[in-house]
Amino acid sequence: MRRLSTQDQNFKQVFADLLAFETVSDPKLLKTVDQIIADVRQHGDAHVLKLTQQFDRHPAHQFSDLELTQEQLKDAFDALNTEVREALELAAARIREFHQAQKQDGWTYVDALGNTLGQKVTPLDRVGIYVPGGLASYPSSVLMNAVPAHVAGVPEIIMVVPAPNGELNPLVLAAAYLAGVTRLFTIGGAQAVAALAYGTETIPSVDKITGPGNRFVAAAKRAVFGQVGIDMIAGPSEILVYAEGENNAEWLAMDLLSQAEHDTVAQAVFITPDEELLNAVDGWIEKHLEALPKAEIARTSIENRGALVLVKDRQEAIELINQVAPEHLELCMDDPQVMAEDIRHAGAIFMGRYTPEAIGDYCAGPNHVLPTSGTARFSSPLGVYDFQKRSSLIMCSQEGVKTLAKTADVLAQQENLDAHARSARYRYQ
Amino acid sequence: MRRLSTQDQNFKQVFADLLAFETVSDPKLLKTVDQIIADVRQHGDAHVLKLTQQFDRHPAHQFSDLELTQEQLKDAFDALNTEVREALELAAARIREFHQAQKQDGWTYVDALGNTLGQKVTPLDRVGIYVPGGLASYPSSVLMNAVPAHVAGVPEIIMVVPAPNGELNPLVLAAAYLAGVTRLFTIGGAQAVAALAYGTETIPSVDKITGPGNRFVAAAKRAVFGQVGIDMIAGPSEILVYAEGENNAEWLAMDLLSQAEHDTVAQAVFITPDEELLNAVDGWIEKHLEALPKAEIARTSIENRGALVLVKDRQEAIELINQVAPEHLELCMDDPQVMAEDIRHAGAIFMGRYTPEAIGDYCAGPNHVLPTSGTARFSSPLGVYDFQKRSSLIMCSQEGVKTLAKTADVLAQQENLDAHARSARYRYQ
Repeated sequence: MRRLSTQDQNFKQVFADLLAFETVSDPKLLKTVDQIIADVRQHGDAHVLKLTQQFDRHPAHQFSDLELTQEQLKDAFDALNTEVREALELAAARIREFHQAQKQDGWTYVDALGNTLGQKVTPLDRVGIYVPGGLASYPSSVLMNAVPAHVAGVPEIIMVVPAPNGELNPLVLAAAYLAGVTRLFTIGGAQAVAALAYGTETIPSVDKITGPGNRFVAAAKRAVFGQVGIDMIAGPSEILVYAEGENNAEWLAMDLLSQAEHDTVAQAVFITPDEELLNAVDGWIEKHLEALPKAEIARTSIENRGALVLVKDRQEAIELINQVAPEHLELCMDDPQVMAEDIRHAGAIFMGRYTPEAIGDYCAGPNHVLPTSGTARFSSPLGVYDFQKRSSLIMCSQEGVKTLAKTADVLAQQENLDAHARSARYRYQ
Repeated sequence: MRRLSTQDQNFKQVFADLLAFETVSDPKLLKTVDQIIADVRQHGDAHVLKLTQQFDRHPAHQFSDLELTQEQLKDAFDALNTEVREALELAAARIREFHQAQKQDGWTYVDALGNTLGQKVTPLDRVGIYVPGGLASYPSSVLMNAVPAHVAGVPEIIMVVPAPNGELNPLVLAAAYLAGVTRLFTIGGAQAVAALAYGTETIPSVDKITGPGNRFVAAAKRAVFGQVGIDMIAGPSEILVYAEGENNAEWLAMDLLSQAEHDTVAQAVFITPDEELLNAVDGWIEKHLEALPKAEIARTSIENRGALVLVKDRQEAIELINQVAPEHLELCMDDPQVMAEDIRHAGAIFMGRYTPEAIGDYCAGPNHVLPTSGTARFSSPLGVYDFQKRSSLIMCSQEGVKTLAKTADVLAQQENLDAHARSARYRYQ
């Protein structure tokens, strides 16, 4: 595996190049997506059905074949074996518990002038959840998107998931049942995003669309942003593992590989001041790459985008981590809370030697939809706050408005907004 | 002014058409903006200077002419007359007080298994604030963008404001001083957005860009979204005034005109169950349209996009308001808090007869950057939360991880992610 040291002469440049990952916007793809959106807006159900038959080779004859009933979801749930059902239930319960803590309430206060100010918090009316189909059709993603919406109090959760050749992962349907999805359509791609954003005869238009997808889905989400809200444009998954002191090198190697097996462009980076540990981790990665079922994907990821980085000390590691702003960060060490204090940017921080990133993917409780590609610099895990919004509240008293109206009058005149000034002036003169 | 009644046969369609406002994406404009971004990324300062000379006819000779010093900002502030300075200070203090209440703190809890879970909240490192130049160069916008960033704890606030012909509103500089702007560049347009997103030799790259701008700025913000965070794509300003009971019709008319004077595509809608009041408001609007300095703008807005809507009762009004999801909502009535309970979507709610929208633009405290064009369905006023982000915290104990690791193992196997399963299994076997 690629080795770097902060002592290398060209370290800064090499490290920056390693992190660089830019999805080049492909004008042809954008044009295709714009056309799909325009056609879905014009032709509704008929066009969504046509594209689903064409792109997903779905055997549906009519649009109603693309909607599943609550009974079908329940049947999928009831058919689970006990071990899987219990695991799914535990995961859902824990995700729900954590997200309950994120729920925000409104507040008001009365200012010194006797005016009431505040913030009202309300759930969105209706949201759309995009779940990828095929290989990446994960039940955990259903829970991670739908549960926060449910906790926020969103009354209608519309899920879309493409079913290539009409086939669906039954566990995805079971998760939809467990998470309280309101309606489920087996559609995907830009056509599903367009249908959710603008509505069709059958599919109700939503207020926000969350969930990951391929390039077409990402481009469509960017295009409909403004008509509806979107969560984020997700990039490839990443992990940064920092370790010092006593550690089980095989565990660390497997944690790195658990990201690498996701995607050939996933990124696994190991940072340590301990060269011996670095060697040991390298050895275990090589060893497991021989045996893993997804060895080919993982090897490509490790070779193209992975790195083992030797640092002088913890302080250097902190600086690198803040530069990377990793989606997943493991701090495998004693007293990780102390180091975590200095981490300014990370999607999720897994602390100590008994907190593998994989438990965060499923059942620790926090969301697994996290900011990638350094966007943790400015964005947050998917959460209940993504399904709530705020309205400002202002109520002035007849006395209390006077000072404010006078101030607004003065400032509005400076901005040459005469009607603003007069509208304020009426209230104090 | 256009009159509608919910009793009109075609009311639903006419009302929907009235609300419709779609900024058609102009492929030529998008291409221009993409080229500007590419050129700024490649040529940095030199290209920003060139475009600023060209588009803004700015007399700068070198890039350093485009940066103002803190002394220049302070001089602008010191030169204010007492009345204006006091008004600006009062506004800043009130905006600061309100936004302090929005500041979020992190939290942790220990679950039943003995694992620690939580959420860490951190400010962004560096943000860019776009302030429009020319006619719409408002000091209030500087405060409304910079103060929340400051309250959030953002260490570096970079402001850009175009200076057509090299001219600047000194009050904008004074507001920048008062709000604690770190650096200020007199640049604008797509080139300013590109420079903030990617950085140049002189301009540091930021993590998020907020603030309104013209079509080029909006398109550039959409294009750089992902590289940096953005606040929202702002549409034309709107107000919806609902009134019942005793009201001063002239006040209500002026509140409606205060939005109409902003922009020919601004929208002012009046809703009431009281036909006499509706007639009176109509009369006052006509009367004031004869005398207002910005009468031409206001008249175009009122004629093209305004409406007086007669409803049967309050319940009908609530339904229309939730359909509109107005940027600004006035509830001019007794006990407005009762009706506000039923309002699900609005940027800001101004309650009672002594709360004109204009005081919200300047000094009530809440932000005046609000979701427009119905986007209050899914988004919030600009706030401190836009300048903070969250990281999830997970720390399992050696005992506490066992249940979670077993669960993750089961679910990872279902998702065919073998390295995930093994990474979890190591921790409980």
